[in-house]
Amino acid sequence: VPDSSVLNIGLIGVGRIGRLHAANLAHQVPRGRLVAIADVIEEAALHSAAEHGVPIAVSEYRTLLDDPEIHAVVICSATDTHAQIIEEAAQAGKHIFCEKPLDLTLARIDTALAAVERAGVVFQIGLNRRFDANFRRVRQAVEHGEIGRPWQLHIVSRDPAPPPISYVKVSGGLFLDMAIHDFDMARFLIDSEVEEVYAAAAVLVDEAIGAVGDVDTAVTILKFANGVIGTIENSRSAAYGYDQRAEILGSAGMVQTENNYPNTAVISGGQTVHRDLPLNFFMERYTQSYLAEVTAFVNTALDGGAPAVSGADGRQAVVLALAALKSFRENRPVRVAEIDKT
Amino acid sequence: VPDSSVLNIGLIGVGRIGRLHAANLAHQVPRGRLVAIADVIEEAALHSAAEHGVPIAVSEYRTLLDDPEIHAVVICSATDTHAQIIEEAAQAGKHIFCEKPLDLTLARIDTALAAVERAGVVFQIGLNRRFDANFRRVRQAVEHGEIGRPWQLHIVSRDPAPPPISYVKVSGGLFLDMAIHDFDMARFLIDSEVEEVYAAAAVLVDEAIGAVGDVDTAVTILKFANGVIGTIENSRSAAYGYDQRAEILGSAGMVQTENNYPNTAVISGGQTVHRDLPLNFFMERYTQSYLAEVTAFVNTALDGGAPAVSGADGRQAVVLALAALKSFRENRPVRVAEIDKT
Amino acid sequence: VPDSSVLNIGLIGVGRIGRLHAANLAHQVPRGRLVAIADVIEEAALHSAAEHGVPIAVSEYRTLLDDPEIHAVVICSATDTHAQIIEEAAQAGKHIFCEKPLDLTLARIDTALAAVERAGVVFQIGLNRRFDANFRRVRQAVEHGEIGRPWQLHIVSRDPAPPPISYVKVSGGLFLDMAIHDFDMARFLIDSEVEEVYAAAAVLVDEAIGAVGDVDTAVTILKFANGVIGTIENSRSAAYGYDQRAEILGSAGMVQTENNYPNTAVISGGQTVHRDLPLNFFMERYTQSYLAEVTAFVNTALDGGAPAVSGADGRQAVVLALAALKSFRENRPVRVAEIDKT
Amino acid sequence: VPDSSVLNIGLIGVGRIGRLHAANLAHQVPRGRLVAIADVIEEAALHSAAEHGVPIAVSEYRTLLDDPEIHAVVICSATDTHAQIIEEAAQAGKHIFCEKPLDLTLARIDTALAAVERAGVVFQIGLNRRFDANFRRVRQAVEHGEIGRPWQLHIVSRDPAPPPISYVKVSGGLFLDMAIHDFDMARFLIDSEVEEVYAAAAVLVDEAIGAVGDVDTAVTILKFANGVIGTIENSRSAAYGYDQRAEILGSAGMVQTENNYPNTAVISGGQTVHRDLPLNFFMERYTQSYLAEVTAFVNTALDGGAPAVSGADGRQAVVLALAALKSFRENRPVRVAEIDKT
Repeated sequence: VPDSSVLNIGLIGVGRIGRLHAANLAHQVPRGRLVAIADVIEEAALHSAAEHGVPIAVSEYRTLLDDPEIHAVVICSATDTHAQIIEEAAQAGKHIFCEKPLDLTLARIDTALAAVERAGVVFQIGLNRRFDANFRRVRQAVEHGEIGRPWQLHIVSRDPAPPPISYVKVSGGLFLDMAIHDFDMARFLIDSEVEEVYAAAAVLVDEAIGAVGDVDTAVTILKFANGVIGTIENSRSAAYGYDQRAEILGSAGMVQTENNYPNTAVISGGQTVHRDLPLNFFMERYTQSYLAEVTAFVNTALDGGAPAVSGADGRQAVVLALAALKSFRENRPVRVAEIDKT
Repeated sequence: VPDSSVLNIGLIGVGRIGRLHAANLAHQVPRGRLVAIADVIEEAALHSAAEHGVPIAVSEYRTLLDDPEIHAVVICSATDTHAQIIEEAAQAGKHIFCEKPLDLTLARIDTALAAVERAGVVFQIGLNRRFDANFRRVRQAVEHGEIGRPWQLHIVSRDPAPPPISYVKVSGGLFLDMAIHDFDMARFLIDSEVEEVYAAAAVLVDEAIGAVGDVDTAVTILKFANGVIGTIENSRSAAYGYDQRAEILGSAGMVQTENNYPNTAVISGGQTVHRDLPLNFFMERYTQSYLAEVTAFVNTALDGGAPAVSGADGRQAVVLALAALKSFRENRPVRVAEIDKT
Repeated sequence: VPDSSVLNIGLIGVGRIGRLHAANLAHQVPRGRLVAIADVIEEAALHSAAEHGVPIAVSEYRTLLDDPEIHAVVICSATDTHAQIIEEAAQAGKHIFCEKPLDLTLARIDTALAAVERAGVVFQIGLNRRFDANFRRVRQAVEHGEIGRPWQLHIVSRDPAPPPISYVKVSGGLFLDMAIHDFDMARFLIDSEVEEVYAAAAVLVDEAIGAVGDVDTAVTILKFANGVIGTIENSRSAAYGYDQRAEILGSAGMVQTENNYPNTAVISGGQTVHRDLPLNFFMERYTQSYLAEVTAFVNTALDGGAPAVSGADGRQAVVLALAALKSFRENRPVRVAEIDKT
Repeated sequence: VPDSSVLNIGLIGVGRIGRLHAANLAHQVPRGRLVAIADVIEEAALHSAAEHGVPIAVSEYRTLLDDPEIHAVVICSATDTHAQIIEEAAQAGKHIFCEKPLDLTLARIDTALAAVERAGVVFQIGLNRRFDANFRRVRQAVEHGEIGRPWQLHIVSRDPAPPPISYVKVSGGLFLDMAIHDFDMARFLIDSEVEEVYAAAAVLVDEAIGAVGDVDTAVTILKFANGVIGTIENSRSAAYGYDQRAEILGSAGMVQTENNYPNTAVISGGQTVHRDLPLNFFMERYTQSYLAEVTAFVNTALDGGAPAVSGADGRQAVVLALAALKSFRENRPVRVAEIDKT
């Protein structure tokens, strides 16, 4: 067990999101110390370690799990390795931060989370958007009764452009890869469980996405236990950039967020009044929330307490994604209990 | 047949919306002349006629149909009288402007529109929002390709407060009374037909609305023939006033409208940055569109051409409302062809 | 003296602003009846009278003053005729609405207003912007203490494009023709008198304006008796259209207005987020305030009470414009008392 | 001379702004290494050094100048020590970053800058706002001709609340302490020199400020060599927080910036539509620009080239502040050449 001053962290996987966490952990989290990096591509581990002055770089993540000086791991490897690594890391007594999604099947998720529970380690799932200033303010408005009792929720979540088809193929599809953030956001903002889901979806952006069995456009209706009716609009493409907004109607009013922009300058010209496009993608848009989530993890690992986003939260996001996928495929409303029989 | 300089108009029904049309026709439509008012409550007809200097005021609308000096009628009577009056007015050779909804049953609508067709008179339905500057600009953006090929539509339509329960009982319910405007708006903005509808709805605002068999909160998903997936959010209550917005995502961008406000003043105080609430209800919000629709009707009646909003448009809005109602009641997606077998 | 039900009005001068008043008086002011039009160009009077069904059209305004059936005149003739017509109309016992500016010299203004006072008729000056919803809301914020004690005022007032040079020559120049509205607005919003003025100005838009002795760009600092320091930015050209805004800082906050737009649609495209330009010029921007000012005049003439914008207000706007002009020419702060020795 | 990989930096003065630079230099500037801290209050130096793991902490800044391992100094000491330390640091061959203002007298500024020139070291003045994303975008719009030829500039610069009277006394007053940022911003945005200044000012916020000979409210008109007329509105108090905006009118349009907000959430309630207040003060508002300016300094010191904000820029901001002060005191326009006879 670490003392309360610093947490030694091993990072597993330095793809795009892993590199982001590496940079944050190396420089911006005072109580966290990045001491080791593992990646199946050893050069990637070495390169990243050199860049940030990290002493250990290996290809085998078990090296990190065996190291008694490492208190926690941050898992950014491929989704299909998450459950296995979680289980082993828990057995090794490491605190665990894992990127979303936990896994694409509930059985494996449950096995992994059971291991976490047995080990009594801290587990946090990487649903970073809960740490975004805009969405936190929406949550606060609901929590403090600023809009009364919530009635309707609307989330817009659009990527600037589709990922490569190679990624689409292994991603689990729009619902499990992309909308999963929005399912979690819906639960976070409304603070009630979803009971039924109906999803309409289509291939409108790029036929190649359809060719590999996925969709690129979706609308999902969520019926919550507390009566709220929510809608989520997803698209794999938005010409103007990353579109990330939420709106809630309640008995006493409405709260809405806007996209974030690189600057506030507005130019009134001879043809239009215009401004620059919103921040383009998650690396720019959620810079602060990525840092905040990992800082929260380090603090929880050192100080104790419930993690900000739990394994159960990560699991429930997958449940809703699976329900939406089933609803879309069968074109009918799907009770969440159909998916999650526990 | 009138000459092309002025259209003599008889108004049938001077409830709230009838009085609005009376004021517009009496003063603001140069080529229209309001010459007669009929209302089953004769004092209402007399009062309104006196207010605007209208020579004829009667309780029996047939008096207007029999008057050869009257070229057109504007029907603002109770919904269940629309079909009958349309039929008689058409037989009398009058041009017809009729408030929405046409009727609540397709059979009666079809009979009435058949009479219109036989008579060859001009028929326009009162779906006024098509004349609103904001929604026209959205339509224009789609039409001119400013956002590319449309993919997703989102309409928000919320009343400031529920109508009296007495009205709710006879209104036909949220879908036929309120959302009908939004079904028409969806068709207007996307310019494609809806093929399937799924509606989720609930009683969240006021249990008394549920007690008379209606709902006060609804979300409807529309699947269009051209692939667009649309959503409509309806609520009978919005603490901040009348909420009337639309947003369309397309392959080249997005167009969004905002609510209209009484002024642009923003006050930055010690606690918040704030402004006055949006215009409160349809009388303030759609002042210009009510005038524009009836001006368009007068011009079409005098000059010929296709009406801006046709009987078929009015009928289709009812079809979609019936489909949404059925979808909500059976909690399943409903093909529009199930409702409209023609 | 008219009874309280209707005011018979004669309009003098049907240039651009006169035609606007004619249309308003003919159709939109229920208690006013436009009964006569005079214009030195008789065809203009005839044309306008025909358009609005006005019975009398003459070239000689004195015909209107001699007509006992006419209760009031609306003066829209050339500025250099205002004082003379006011004097005669007052002697004839007519209520008077006069377009701004009253006159370009204080001596003539004082003679005219003395005649008004002797006759005891209602006199209102056409400083229409006081009736604009945005500026009224700013005034209300100050009046109701919503921003505390006012400290700083900033007015932006820019025309979309310069008037023809022929107009510039006879206009009295930027300060007396254009900024005069803003001097009045400053007094209206702050509700205190200006004691000192400093104006910086230049010819930046069009050298032809400089060639006839005028400027096209100006900034004026106003020091008010209550301590407020105000600034006015004027330009004869704004590529994006008519720019009409005000902002006041007070001890408890700030109030700001924005320009008015033809619609609220915002388009997020591949290059920028943009919207249509603001309303282009005063005919579109101040439609409602032109109607409101003349309605207020008719009501005051019929019901009594102080006019909404008095002769003294019209005079003071000229005083400040003359002070600004002197300040610019001598490049020094000018005490208002230097101009107005009364 | 340092190699190009890292710059060893000594920080002189760890008051509020010094601590901000310490945190940035210690963690966020990869190519800078904070190796020493000096403060006349030794405990302050020790505390800050401990916090950031800085090896050297002393009370005497000359210790840093004598250390050959230190390549550069960042001067955050009291204003009246700047000139002396600059001179000595230059003689010691250190690169110099100095907080604004350079000094309050031109003679001392010139002596210090002459020493810098002789030594050939890099000198950058801490006018951080030039690095702000909003103002950079305004500058870019001007530079790229997006608004055509500039005609009018308007800067609003208001602090949330006045500093302590003890600070006001030694600050040099509103023009030299606060407006100096805006004078520099004006030059930066317009890229032309100011030739004449007129300033109106008053004590409206707090009489105690007047009691020590300063003002708390000011408006300054700037006449630029290229014809632009600029205005700056300053206030020591804004109930809603830090107000930092700029607006430029040009021949082809206008560019405007807004304040920065902690989130984008807008709440439409039963009384108003509102949002949270803007970022409260410079520590929150200019976080990124403080980091950017010192990063730019480190890069210039290592790589060579002209500093982003030069000694001449720092000097000219003081010249304009002195001109504004003289203008206010004598209530007349002051030619900049009256102040700066070089």
